[in-house]
Amino acid sequence: MADGTMIATREDCLAADAADPLAACRHRFALPEGVIYLNGNSLGALPTAATAIFDAAIRQEWGGGLITSWNRAGWFDLPVTLGDRVGALIGAGPGQTVVCDTTSINLYKAIRAAIGLKAGRPAIVSDAGSFPTDLYILEGAIGDGGSHSCRLIGRDGDTLDELIDDTVAAVVLSNVDYRTGALIDMAATTRKVQAAGALAIWDLCHSAGVVPLRFDDWRIDFAVGCTYKYLNAGPGAPAYFSVAKRHHAAARQPLTGWWGHADPFAFDPQFTPDAGIRRFLCGTQPVISMRGVQCGLDAMGDQDIAAIRAKSQALTALFMARLAPLCAQYGMAIITPRDPDRRGSQVAVAFRHGYALAQAMISRGVIGDFRAPDTMRFGFAPLYLRYQDVWDAAQVMAECLAGEVWRDPQFSRRAAVT
Amino acid sequence: MADGTMIATREDCLAADAADPLAACRHRFALPEGVIYLNGNSLGALPTAATAIFDAAIRQEWGGGLITSWNRAGWFDLPVTLGDRVGALIGAGPGQTVVCDTTSINLYKAIRAAIGLKAGRPAIVSDAGSFPTDLYILEGAIGDGGSHSCRLIGRDGDTLDELIDDTVAAVVLSNVDYRTGALIDMAATTRKVQAAGALAIWDLCHSAGVVPLRFDDWRIDFAVGCTYKYLNAGPGAPAYFSVAKRHHAAARQPLTGWWGHADPFAFDPQFTPDAGIRRFLCGTQPVISMRGVQCGLDAMGDQDIAAIRAKSQALTALFMARLAPLCAQYGMAIITPRDPDRRGSQVAVAFRHGYALAQAMISRGVIGDFRAPDTMRFGFAPLYLRYQDVWDAAQVMAECLAGEVWRDPQFSRRAAVT
Repeated sequence: MADGTMIATREDCLAADAADPLAACRHRFALPEGVIYLNGNSLGALPTAATAIFDAAIRQEWGGGLITSWNRAGWFDLPVTLGDRVGALIGAGPGQTVVCDTTSINLYKAIRAAIGLKAGRPAIVSDAGSFPTDLYILEGAIGDGGSHSCRLIGRDGDTLDELIDDTVAAVVLSNVDYRTGALIDMAATTRKVQAAGALAIWDLCHSAGVVPLRFDDWRIDFAVGCTYKYLNAGPGAPAYFSVAKRHHAAARQPLTGWWGHADPFAFDPQFTPDAGIRRFLCGTQPVISMRGVQCGLDAMGDQDIAAIRAKSQALTALFMARLAPLCAQYGMAIITPRDPDRRGSQVAVAFRHGYALAQAMISRGVIGDFRAPDTMRFGFAPLYLRYQDVWDAAQVMAECLAGEVWRDPQFSRRAAVT
Repeated sequence: MADGTMIATREDCLAADAADPLAACRHRFALPEGVIYLNGNSLGALPTAATAIFDAAIRQEWGGGLITSWNRAGWFDLPVTLGDRVGALIGAGPGQTVVCDTTSINLYKAIRAAIGLKAGRPAIVSDAGSFPTDLYILEGAIGDGGSHSCRLIGRDGDTLDELIDDTVAAVVLSNVDYRTGALIDMAATTRKVQAAGALAIWDLCHSAGVVPLRFDDWRIDFAVGCTYKYLNAGPGAPAYFSVAKRHHAAARQPLTGWWGHADPFAFDPQFTPDAGIRRFLCGTQPVISMRGVQCGLDAMGDQDIAAIRAKSQALTALFMARLAPLCAQYGMAIITPRDPDRRGSQVAVAFRHGYALAQAMISRGVIGDFRAPDTMRFGFAPLYLRYQDVWDAAQVMAECLAGEVWRDPQFSRRAAVT
């Protein structure tokens, strides 16, 4: 794999692309012409094979098979069959992962389950810099029970070491910071959390698919994540929820819908949870969007995650190297860790004209995004991005900066949704 | 509209079809050849226009527009734009309905919100014959808070009148019984519930789209329902949740994800709920499956719900009339109310060989379903069913009964999923 920091010319990029062991993967995605897509950390690209899979699900399974497809097309089992495939990606053995609902809802289940497993421990620790919805869900989940308090890493400069003790039921953290792209050491952090007798709940939204993960080996308790970023499952496709087998018997979650019942078609008026991972399911899942998860996993194929990680580190290194002189010249700051082992697959840049710059780059086909108040984010999906794309994106940024695009009213600030 | 009880021959059916004001609607659905589909009460049929809408969502919006489609294709607003359309169908004015998540999860939100609104009232009333998932969710929602008890209509022969008093926070009921098809008078029941100071939470899964509903006029407090039955939105398509505007300011639900925030893109670490209906949203919704809701609503068009109801009553009356002699001969019993104003759009038949009979009918192209222990259910979707289909379905049933299909091992009992 190319060393991104050693690339000095566009020709070097072409050579790196020619030598890229993942080069053939690009053809598995239907990328629009004239676009360099640096937002796979928010919404992954459409897999080429997806249209046929969706079409079969819509015309044959739904239209032709109608109600019989719940059995014959395997719809009812999609949460566990797809769950096992996602599990394999994050190092979780079979029977520990379901694909269902949303990341937020699965996080709610995890927090409520952890609170139940650690009765008598009245605190939850999280990070003030978490993706806000994780904090909101935490607020909802502990507000609901009433008796738990929340301690946030970073709020008053506190560290995990200062906040964790034997009153903590669980620690809820993101593997990768959604703004800076900083990667937390899940193995070491989980050991620390568990040494204090607490449970580790991880949000893998920004790492699954681009960072090697070992759910079982690191003895993670709970993990949640979405499938529509680096797993390329499509907009809002159902999320996943992994629960270590050792917790299945005792863990309860309050969203006790019929899909979590031990025998859902007995229509028993009493709820008896399934003995295994299905107890973490709730209601009927959106089948068409579930097929998107299959498409995304198919597009990833059996690619070695280590090769994906190596290319991700090389692409982000190249982009940071290209941006360094621009930062110096225009007063931008890369807020992503320079150490490749301490970042995910994105590069974030703080810049007071960030909104306008991001909009101007989008208008020229380089799609990144912007997060208030001043952060531009660029994600690097190794399956479909080339070294030449990274070079060209930096070049477009340089031209936009040289043109002082923030003086152009068409790029002025409005509500940013992406 | 034809009177189903006056039809005496198949020719009468053809005449009724020719005179049917809804006849043209059938072409809006892609029904498989050789199938009479009597399971629209479980999974509605594929709208003909759906394939183009899905294809545009997949190829153009996702594939071409990528992340920009959250704004440009209106993805982010789908819960409220589709919500208002569902609201119109159930008589709820704009700004009171969202399409999101699953029926079970929305019911959980409703129960938790009602408990919060009625602090100091420690009981919830429901019906022992509810679709089990509603009871399971109730168990999860009250178990979670800890201090509420559940009283069930019908468990010990108790009626709503006997169970409701000033300790009841909310009453959770289904408008149509999922087994018998019996229709409850929502207006009168809601008045009774509210006269006791409690809130009325309705599950509309089996009535929306086939029964005229007046959410606002009847002063319903909360309603939930799925979109994949008579609304034809596709397998597992997102559900809806309606909350009367008078409750928006005070009602809180614990699934406080970022889509429910007053300003989701401010990335505020504190949760501040949206002032309106969006506070009942949680996380990112499955866009492709959401487009199915649009397809289903489009296929319904601006059909007058009164005409749909009239045809529904005629079709169910015809089916019951055709089954009456078979019931007498074979020991089957129609458990659906004979009074057309007291039933939804299905006919349920109790029969000790019901499983085998349902399977045999499916093998001959007449698709109904079976619910343990002994109930065959047949749903009648007026938009795509003809009088001749009903006649033919009854004829197939008669032939299966005459052939004593339950003696055939191929129709013996296995796990029934549909």
